[in-house]
Amino acid sequence: MKKDKFGIQGFKASVIAAGIKKDKSLDMALIVSETEASAAGVFTTNKVKAAPVIFSMECLRNGKARAIIANSGNANACTGKNGINDARTTAELVAAEVGINPREVLVASTGVIGSPMDMTIFRRAVPKLAKKLSYNGIPRAAEAIMTTDSFPKLRTFHGIAGKKPYRITGIAKGAGMIMPDMATMLCFILTDLNIKPKDLRAALSEAVEASFNRITVDGDTSTNDTVLVLANGMAENKNPGDADFREFQKGLQQVMTDLAQMIVKDGEGATKVVNIRLRGAERRNDALKAIRNIANSSLVKTAFYGQDPNWGRIMAAIGRSDISMNEEKVEIWIDDIKIVDNGLAVGKEAERRAAERMKNEKFSLTINLNVGKYEEEYSTCDLTHEYVSINADYRT
Amino acid sequence: MKKDKFGIQGFKASVIAAGIKKDKSLDMALIVSETEASAAGVFTTNKVKAAPVIFSMECLRNGKARAIIANSGNANACTGKNGINDARTTAELVAAEVGINPREVLVASTGVIGSPMDMTIFRRAVPKLAKKLSYNGIPRAAEAIMTTDSFPKLRTFHGIAGKKPYRITGIAKGAGMIMPDMATMLCFILTDLNIKPKDLRAALSEAVEASFNRITVDGDTSTNDTVLVLANGMAENKNPGDADFREFQKGLQQVMTDLAQMIVKDGEGATKVVNIRLRGAERRNDALKAIRNIANSSLVKTAFYGQDPNWGRIMAAIGRSDISMNEEKVEIWIDDIKIVDNGLAVGKEAERRAAERMKNEKFSLTINLNVGKYEEEYSTCDLTHEYVSINADYRT
Repeated sequence: MKKDKFGIQGFKASVIAAGIKKDKSLDMALIVSETEASAAGVFTTNKVKAAPVIFSMECLRNGKARAIIANSGNANACTGKNGINDARTTAELVAAEVGINPREVLVASTGVIGSPMDMTIFRRAVPKLAKKLSYNGIPRAAEAIMTTDSFPKLRTFHGIAGKKPYRITGIAKGAGMIMPDMATMLCFILTDLNIKPKDLRAALSEAVEASFNRITVDGDTSTNDTVLVLANGMAENKNPGDADFREFQKGLQQVMTDLAQMIVKDGEGATKVVNIRLRGAERRNDALKAIRNIANSSLVKTAFYGQDPNWGRIMAAIGRSDISMNEEKVEIWIDDIKIVDNGLAVGKEAERRAAERMKNEKFSLTINLNVGKYEEEYSTCDLTHEYVSINADYRT
Repeated sequence: MKKDKFGIQGFKASVIAAGIKKDKSLDMALIVSETEASAAGVFTTNKVKAAPVIFSMECLRNGKARAIIANSGNANACTGKNGINDARTTAELVAAEVGINPREVLVASTGVIGSPMDMTIFRRAVPKLAKKLSYNGIPRAAEAIMTTDSFPKLRTFHGIAGKKPYRITGIAKGAGMIMPDMATMLCFILTDLNIKPKDLRAALSEAVEASFNRITVDGDTSTNDTVLVLANGMAENKNPGDADFREFQKGLQQVMTDLAQMIVKDGEGATKVVNIRLRGAERRNDALKAIRNIANSSLVKTAFYGQDPNWGRIMAAIGRSDISMNEEKVEIWIDDIKIVDNGLAVGKEAERRAAERMKNEKFSLTINLNVGKYEEEYSTCDLTHEYVSINADYRT
């Protein structure tokens, strides 16, 4: 039994610059499990779903899979029936080369929407990918799925289930269009834990809710968002009991939260990560509505960029959230510096100190509505000149 | 009976650089009707309402008013009970100088949120404003209410009711935070028509829905949005019958639609105005949800700026709107150039031609969902480097 340096038994990966991206950087990755794996996925809630999303959702019905083929540069979205056929053909190419069933191959794509896939590229690349499969391939796979990402995203967790050590390794790509539910975001989680598909699905769904569904870059969601998890059982533990399941759940959530934080940090053009905490809401849904409006407000996010504790914009974002609130009860902090008390400015000196904190790459914004007991957390980034540059020039 | 050059009988106005704005530009305007006027208003739906909004809503209960005092530079929002007192004091200062009842004075403010008003400035400025009142003051009032606006906004309509000619003149300020319901947007409409408060309210509410509630700059709404209309009756017509009322309604809506378009054109940092038409929705609410998501999407708006017919972002914005749709039925046009048919790209040549049109300062984006009969129109602007610059530096 072999391990890669991230310790995931029985998973091989390979990458290639196949030529989908014009700049000839890495744009395709293949991940293969030596054995059949339990598999689960969470996908975009956007009604416009890319072909690989539709294809992989169908594949996952039986809770089993052995491979993931992913490409960047072309999203294979808004490509109609041809797009679905191309996703299926891709799976068939992989299956033939690796010697598995096409139904065991999951497909994920990210990139430009609305362009047909050039299948000659896949026909040429997949055999090469199959030949290059290696136990050390995972970190490069994290590179191959990048689009406007500025760094690869990878995280590992070490756990023990029934005295058997196991690992969870996740890779992700993000950058723009990051918003619940999810993002133009791909995330692949590999673990050698032995776990039933049903339990894996439950763990995944809870972990996504606490991680990727609590971040935003620009409030846009994509057609291609995909989180896949494969558990190949090579740790040879028994199916986890309650305590082991909780540890796995915690580990999975930790990996995904870390990846989610990396995605926000790498938000298109972002210079700052802001952790927003909204407390004291009357209802859970109020907390979510208000925190999303704050986290997605262009005016709030430009103020973060300007290092300006412009709490009036925060109050305005809360006020238009259609929630229970009383302006006179609102408190606001930047890190531990209170800038609003009873809905009023604390003073210029407090704002000056808050502005100092906002020079940091990471700070927190805490709001207490003081009308109830519900709270929510969210991570967001600032809105910068660079965001505009990246997105005004993306296709050109 | 006197007319200003915009033809509104019996309205005087004056302006002053009172010193609220640090750059010493005009920041206060006073408008006074010679006679008691029918009055109506529409205000922000934000739950965080500025003091002058709360004060003016109360004043308008009896449907009568004679004066409007407006300032820029300080929004008098999130200022608590002191803020309300300051708004009342402002009205009293005006009433005393002009010789009217404080209950006849409407107050409007725009500017920074959360700073107390400096009432010494008002005590010094209001007597000067009263002395300077003139029949030619309206155009300068349009300048005095500007904040980050780059040009004053003024429009006049000429109508006839019961053989009596009348005028409608509107002034507005906008710039950022423009979004239903309304904006950091002030709009004052003056007319010499004779009309009952009840009818004036009805006409205003319909005109606002068709104009200011169909524009967006950044999806943010403000604490201070205010539209006021005064009708002083000096045209001496009888209260309008059905036909005359419809003409007035049409005129009011035209003035407000033109002002709304000017606000979008002057959106913070905007270089382009895009008129979005969404057709073929199954429900009215579907049409509104989809068109708002498109008009407020940072990714769509940066693509406008980049003159890129990136329809994938438009499809993604529709897809996350939670509406009835069938991707395969969607059609998209830039002006009259079809770029998407049956949910698929028409082709590179069509996109090249669409990109040419997007170089213009104004173009249209039309989407047909082809699943129903409802349609909506909206105006928005692009998201630019300059928007970020303006809003990152606003308070500093």
